Amino acid sequence: MLTPKLQTLHRTVNRLFRRNAVQPLTNLLQKSHVADLGFLLPHFSETEQLGLVAHLKDEERRAQVLAEADKDVASRLLGVMPPEQAVELLQHMEPDDASDLLQLMDEEAAESLLQLMREGRDVVEELSQYDQETAGGIMSPRFFSLLGDTTAGEAIEELQRVHDDLEMVFYVYVVSELEQLLGVLSLRQLVTTKRDTKLIDLMTSDVVSVTPDVDQEEVAKIASRYGLLAVPVVDEANKLIGIITVDDVIDVLREEATEDILRMAGAGDDLAESDGLFRSMALRARWLFVVALGGAACAALLATYAVRIDAFIPVVFLVPLVLGLSGMIGLQGTTVVMQRLLQGRLGLKLASHVLRQGVAGMLLGVVFGLICAFLYWIWIANSGTPGSLDPLVASAALGLAVCGAMAISAMIGAVLPIVFSRVGIDPALSAGPLGTIVVDLLAMLAFLAIGSFWL
Amino acid sequence: MLTPKLQTLHRTVNRLFRRNAVQPLTNLLQKSHVADLGFLLPHFSETEQLGLVAHLKDEERRAQVLAEADKDVASRLLGVMPPEQAVELLQHMEPDDASDLLQLMDEEAAESLLQLMREGRDVVEELSQYDQETAGGIMSPRFFSLLGDTTAGEAIEELQRVHDDLEMVFYVYVVSELEQLLGVLSLRQLVTTKRDTKLIDLMTSDVVSVTPDVDQEEVAKIASRYGLLAVPVVDEANKLIGIITVDDVIDVLREEATEDILRMAGAGDDLAESDGLFRSMALRARWLFVVALGGAACAALLATYAVRIDAFIPVVFLVPLVLGLSGMIGLQGTTVVMQRLLQGRLGLKLASHVLRQGVAGMLLGVVFGLICAFLYWIWIANSGTPGSLDPLVASAALGLAVCGAMAISAMIGAVLPIVFSRVGIDPALSAGPLGTIVVDLLAMLAFLAIGSFWL
Repeated sequence: MLTPKLQTLHRTVNRLFRRNAVQPLTNLLQKSHVADLGFLLPHFSETEQLGLVAHLKDEERRAQVLAEADKDVASRLLGVMPPEQAVELLQHMEPDDASDLLQLMDEEAAESLLQLMREGRDVVEELSQYDQETAGGIMSPRFFSLLGDTTAGEAIEELQRVHDDLEMVFYVYVVSELEQLLGVLSLRQLVTTKRDTKLIDLMTSDVVSVTPDVDQEEVAKIASRYGLLAVPVVDEANKLIGIITVDDVIDVLREEATEDILRMAGAGDDLAESDGLFRSMALRARWLFVVALGGAACAALLATYAVRIDAFIPVVFLVPLVLGLSGMIGLQGTTVVMQRLLQGRLGLKLASHVLRQGVAGMLLGVVFGLICAFLYWIWIANSGTPGSLDPLVASAALGLAVCGAMAISAMIGAVLPIVFSRVGIDPALSAGPLGTIVVDLLAMLAFLAIGSFWL
Repeated sequence: MLTPKLQTLHRTVNRLFRRNAVQPLTNLLQKSHVADLGFLLPHFSETEQLGLVAHLKDEERRAQVLAEADKDVASRLLGVMPPEQAVELLQHMEPDDASDLLQLMDEEAAESLLQLMREGRDVVEELSQYDQETAGGIMSPRFFSLLGDTTAGEAIEELQRVHDDLEMVFYVYVVSELEQLLGVLSLRQLVTTKRDTKLIDLMTSDVVSVTPDVDQEEVAKIASRYGLLAVPVVDEANKLIGIITVDDVIDVLREEATEDILRMAGAGDDLAESDGLFRSMALRARWLFVVALGGAACAALLATYAVRIDAFIPVVFLVPLVLGLSGMIGLQGTTVVMQRLLQGRLGLKLASHVLRQGVAGMLLGVVFGLICAFLYWIWIANSGTPGSLDPLVASAALGLAVCGAMAISAMIGAVLPIVFSRVGIDPALSAGPLGTIVVDLLAMLAFLAIGSFWL
């Protein structure tokens, strides 16, 4: 899934590596965007990755490429390069990136690298105390804050003085002598006002801020709802301790979308390879076990009804078909309602949405019930009537059973996310294995009950 | 899923409405953030929605709340309010928001509102010509551009002159006399340089830009990869025609995540209600039909093998169990590989990933095969041996069949997204109904083949 531009870059770098053409390689790497190089890094072998990093112009650029690369790959590279070099790179990174990479390395290696760090060690250590998925874990401790009685002119001079480390300056935070957050103003406000205006008269004091323990998903929601380019993080005493910039917010949104999809498949919620084969197997086994229980319940249901139904054998062959149709229509209702719920878009019309799903399920149930009845009728007409039943009655019973199972599934599927969120289970799980089993069992029960009643 | 703060706001507004307390309501609405009001809007009934909008201070604020609200709700409100009022609101909105809302209304109503617009009509009409899901559909035609020989000082003065319409100014775009995009500089660069520096000497000429036909997902990827706060849009002649700001990028990312999840459930890719019950039914019926075909194939498979297997009845009861386990493990492999593929994170290790999924599937297959064999053994030991088989042999055969079906499913599941993307099908579909059926059928085949070979 590389863009043509990245494919060309990848091929060219590969070719220059093979030819050992140092100068052209250095030139090419110098001309390329660090984001592109970081993105491509995992597409090379480890030796090539080390070579690529070594051919970059300076520590600054090396650190940038590593910070842009996949975190698993970057932390592994830091582990295999000479410690002095790894430390040099960590010191040139944003502290939050450095802290993330160190947390992915094994503890001993991370500790020894930390010991070697001459500058920024305190900051990195402070950051590592926060959970990686909270505001504290993704914030950067580098922000631009000034006292309230600073004038706009002084602020601009100050901005000229601070070196380029603060690359993402959009807002100026106004703080008290105790570094408590008082207000905020945009760079644009600063520029377009008179030079002797005091910041305190210019700022908005209605600042949206978060504490470091707030979940990163919540931070992303706040930033996106209020259209903020950076969310300030304050401690209990309202002291400004960091900011979360919009690029981190975007990363969070991408991560969370992946998490939701993996959760739906009962495949854990993390793509990290460092977790190891057995941990990921254990995560999956949990859900497979739930599925197995559901399957065993289905088998018991089938065995119970088997005694009663005369024409059972051909009906039992249709079980995968019925489960497939009900599962699908249930999942469709679940995902639609779940997504609306997660976006807070259900509002007043909760009941109407669920009803809508039920109606759609019933109508589709009629369509597919007819199709199934027709196919079944052809089948038994050809292979002989099962038991002593009239083929038409048997087909009609089957069609009705399919229709009933689908209608029930659609309704249950639509209600599930709401029930899940009311009892405090993550609604994303309703579209996952747990929801599937509930729908499957109820559909099976409806199918067998309706079918055996008629036959 | 409302935050406590929003819940309180919702309740208070409701209470003030019931009491018809106009002044307190107006005060409360004035104090609240437009983003909060917009978010809450769909949670009120239509009459209340109209009342809420009417109680807002001015047109500016009304337009902002409507622009922040759910697009379906906002466009419906515009349709029910008096046309003069709707036009007034549209004129106070960002042109891209106005264009979006008009596109959601029915064509006649939208056309008559457009005719009534005195200002901004050209811009809105121009924007409506682009597909809503492309760069042209989400761009804003309001940006800050200046000629290259402008000095930094003049640029700052110009910035003070332009009124507040350009709320999201982060970059100054440098253009030629023909409005062609030459380069870009940040507001910070502008502020921290000498006032007589010319923009052309200050700008970066290596600008990432897109054409209006680029897919919005691609725009979001570019913005997030290069950490851009705004992506400029240029036409074929490199003339700057709009910018896409980071808040729109965030909206796109959220939309696309929803789309992927809905697609996985074969539920279309849109939550829009305006699509109507029948259109959404038709979308779903397509996938249900595919599922039905798969189910019919399963039934045929079962019927074919039924003749051969002596102990068939109890084995057939286990079909839902086997399908559940194989489907789950296949989906787990599919989603993991699919997500890595979509993130471009597969790199060199394609084969190793697929292999890993296969190994995990085999090992989990052994575990669950043993569990199934054990349960089956208890069952037939209690209810009598089926046919003339030794219970131990029958159980072992079943366990082996489960293990084989799961191993095959895990492998196929992991390969599917890669095959799909190679033949040009959206890999997200591999985790959807299409992938499920392929996995189900192959698992069924493996299960029956292994089972019947032994029995």
